[in-house]
Amino acid sequence: MPENGRFYYDDYVVIKALENGVTVIGLTRGKDTRFHHTEKLDKNEIMIAQFTEHTSAIKIRGRVEVLTKHGKLRNDE
Amino acid sequence: MPENGRFYYDDYVVIKALENGVTVIGLTRGKDTRFHHTEKLDKNEIMIAQFTEHTSAIKIRGRVEVLTKHGKLRNDE
Amino acid sequence: MPENGRFYYDDYVVIKALENGVTVIGLTRGKDTRFHHTEKLDKNEIMIAQFTEHTSAIKIRGRVEVLTKHGKLRNDE
Amino acid sequence: MPENGRFYYDDYVVIKALENGVTVIGLTRGKDTRFHHTEKLDKNEIMIAQFTEHTSAIKIRGRVEVLTKHGKLRNDE
Amino acid sequence: MPENGRFYYDDYVVIKALENGVTVIGLTRGKDTRFHHTEKLDKNEIMIAQFTEHTSAIKIRGRVEVLTKHGKLRNDE
Amino acid sequence: MPENGRFYYDDYVVIKALENGVTVIGLTRGKDTRFHHTEKLDKNEIMIAQFTEHTSAIKIRGRVEVLTKHGKLRNDE
Amino acid sequence: MPENGRFYYDDYVVIKALENGVTVIGLTRGKDTRFHHTEKLDKNEIMIAQFTEHTSAIKIRGRVEVLTKHGKLRNDE
Amino acid sequence: MPENGRFYYDDYVVIKALENGVTVIGLTRGKDTRFHHTEKLDKNEIMIAQFTEHTSAIKIRGRVEVLTKHGKLRNDE
Amino acid sequence: MPENGRFYYDDYVVIKALENGVTVIGLTRGKDTRFHHTEKLDKNEIMIAQFTEHTSAIKIRGRVEVLTKHGKLRNDE
Amino acid sequence: MPENGRFYYDDYVVIKALENGVTVIGLTRGKDTRFHHTEKLDKNEIMIAQFTEHTSAIKIRGRVEVLTKHGKLRNDE
Amino acid sequence: MPENGRFYYDDYVVIKALENGVTVIGLTRGKDTRFHHTEKLDKNEIMIAQFTEHTSAIKIRGRVEVLTKHGKLRNDE
Amino acid sequence: MPENGRFYYDDYVVIKALENGVTVIGLTRGKDTRFHHTEKLDKNEIMIAQFTEHTSAIKIRGRVEVLTKHGKLRNDE
Repeated sequence: MPENGRFYYDDYVVIKALENGVTVIGLTRGKDTRFHHTEKLDKNEIMIAQFTEHTSAIKIRGRVEVLTKHGKLRNDE
Repeated sequence: MPENGRFYYDDYVVIKALENGVTVIGLTRGKDTRFHHTEKLDKNEIMIAQFTEHTSAIKIRGRVEVLTKHGKLRNDE
Repeated sequence: MPENGRFYYDDYVVIKALENGVTVIGLTRGKDTRFHHTEKLDKNEIMIAQFTEHTSAIKIRGRVEVLTKHGKLRNDE
Repeated sequence: MPENGRFYYDDYVVIKALENGVTVIGLTRGKDTRFHHTEKLDKNEIMIAQFTEHTSAIKIRGRVEVLTKHGKLRNDE
Repeated sequence: MPENGRFYYDDYVVIKALENGVTVIGLTRGKDTRFHHTEKLDKNEIMIAQFTEHTSAIKIRGRVEVLTKHGKLRNDE
Repeated sequence: MPENGRFYYDDYVVIKALENGVTVIGLTRGKDTRFHHTEKLDKNEIMIAQFTEHTSAIKIRGRVEVLTKHGKLRNDE
Repeated sequence: MPENGRFYYDDYVVIKALENGVTVIGLTRGKDTRFHHTEKLDKNEIMIAQFTEHTSAIKIRGRVEVLTKHGKLRNDE
Repeated sequence: MPENGRFYYDDYVVIKALENGVTVIGLTRGKDTRFHHTEKLDKNEIMIAQFTEHTSAIKIRGRVEVLTKHGKLRNDE
Repeated sequence: MPENGRFYYDDYVVIKALENGVTVIGLTRGKDTRFHHTEKLDKNEIMIAQFTEHTSAIKIRGRVEVLTKHGKLRNDE
Repeated sequence: MPENGRFYYDDYVVIKALENGVTVIGLTRGKDTRFHHTEKLDKNEIMIAQFTEHTSAIKIRGRVEVLTKHGKLRNDE
Repeated sequence: MPENGRFYYDDYVVIKALENGVTVIGLTRGKDTRFHHTEKLDKNEIMIAQFTEHTSAIKIRGRVEVLTKHGKLRNDE
Repeated sequence: MPENGRFYYDDYVVIKALENGVTVIGLTRGKDTRFHHTEKLDKNEIMIAQFTEHTSAIKIRGRVEVLTKHGKLRNDE
């Protein structure tokens, strides 16, 4: 257990699936930007995801509502 | 007991189950993003969960109301 | 007594029991997320609990009103 | 007297007893969460208590008005 | 005189006595929570008291108006 | 002259005497809470006083108007 | 794993594709500003991207809605 | 010239004399609270004074308008 | 990879091209202020650019809408 | 040139002379509070002055408008 | 490449030329205040410039609109 | 190039000349307060000037509009 840096306050986004089969993809931080994780969401499932040492970008496929610090966004309008 | 870093101010989310059988799943921080904990909530149970050294994402299955710093969300509308 | 870090400003939540037999459960921080403390509240008892080195999640069973930094929540509506 | 850390800015809550025999209980910080102090308040007595190295949770029995950073709460409604 | 830490910004509360014989009691910080100081206030006397290395809780007996960061409180209503 | 810590930003309160013979008393910080300074104010005199290494509480006798970070207070109403 | 600096709070932007074939291009930080990553978005796909050690500018081709800390922007009006 | 601490951001108060012969008195910081400086202001003269290493309290005699961070005060009403 | 300073929170500006052939020019930080990068934007392309170790000024030619922390600006009015 | 502390963000006040012969006097920081600089302003001249290592108080003679962080003040009303 | 201090958050101003031949001049930080860079702007060109190690003042000739943290300014009214 | 302290966020003021022959004078920081730089502004020229290691006060002669953090000021009314 590290002695400092126990502080995981990085921002997060909130994603609500509006249909089955939504895909939330974490893209790698670092020189190569590639997919490192894919999470499947069914309708009404909610994912709350932080940016981390390994994830500096998130890509979302499928109808969702997203809450971020810059506001709310839907793609089913 | 550590000498520094006694500071657990990481953000948290508040989840209220709106039906029996809600599942709140902690996903691991780090290279592999996999389930590391699953908590079952019955109707009206409330869970208040921080992001931690081990949890950088949370997935929720079932009807809930969620309070986050980016606002409030329900999936039973 | 430690020389630094005397600073216990971590966030807290406020729980008011709306019935007898409310259970407030502290879940452990760390690799294993398990119950480490259970507090019983009778009707109208109030508990004000911080997140700590040992508690990174709180689970509540029974009718309550909860005050958090993300807003107020009741489960008896 | 320590050279640093003279800084006792931790948050506090304000409790006003609305009847005789109110009990304000400090619960220990650390692995074991047990009662470490009990303060009795008679009607109209006020207690203003910080979270400290030794107290990470407070439990209140009896009718009170409580002021916290998340708002005001009464249990005599 | 210490070289650092000359910084006494800890929060304070403001107490106005609404009757003679108000008692403001400082409770000790640390393992034992006991009375370490009692200040008597007559009607209309005002006390402005910080939390300190020695005081982590304040108990008030008698009719007062109190100003705190969480709001204003009277016990003579 | 110290090399660091030249920073005297501690909070202050503003006291206006509304009658002759107002007494503003500084109470000592530390284990013993005793009077260490008494300042007499005549009607309309104003005192602006910081909390310091030596003063952690202030007691006021006589009719005054006080401005603090928690609001304004008069005791002549 | 580094001991400090586990803190990935850099700002991010939110991009919603309003048509197929949107291109989001990361431009390199450093002396040379060149394309280092290109992400294709189809209609309604959402990308949430941080600035990083490797990306100090983002270029977007195609109809999008963008949320940033300086406001919202659309290019299909 | 010191290498650090060139930072004189301590708070100040603004005093406008509303009559001749206003006295602004600096009281010493430290164990002894005594007058260390007296400044005379004639009508309409303005004094803007910081708290400093040497001044932790200010006493004002005579009719003035004072601007502080806790609000505005006049003593000629 | 550096151990500290992984923090790329520098401010950014958002530029939307309102015509083809917009030029966004990065000017060098340092003793010499010269062009170090030129980015061409066609109509409706969006560029989001941080200030960096290498860029302390940005020059824009052509009709654009710009979002900055000091407000919004258009040059096609 | 010092390696740290290049940071001159101390607060300043803005003074506009409303008549000829306004005097802005810098008073010394430190044990002795004496005049160390006098600046004469003619009507409509403006002076913007920081608090510094050498100046902890400013005295103004003559009709002026002053802008400070605690508000605006005129002495010619 | 330095290990710390990768942080270029200094404030910037936004300048829009309202005519051809606008001149934006960077003045040197340090003992001598002299011109170190001159940038010419034609009508509708926009310049966004930070304060830097080398620039502590900016002088503008010609009709412009300027956005700063203290507000907006035009000189063509 | 220094390793730390690359941070030039000191406050600045914005000056617009409302007539020819405006003089903006930088006064030296330090024991002696004397003129160290004089900048002439013609009508409509704008100067944006930071406080620096060398400048702790600014004196302005001639009709101007000034924007500061304490508000806006004109001397041609």
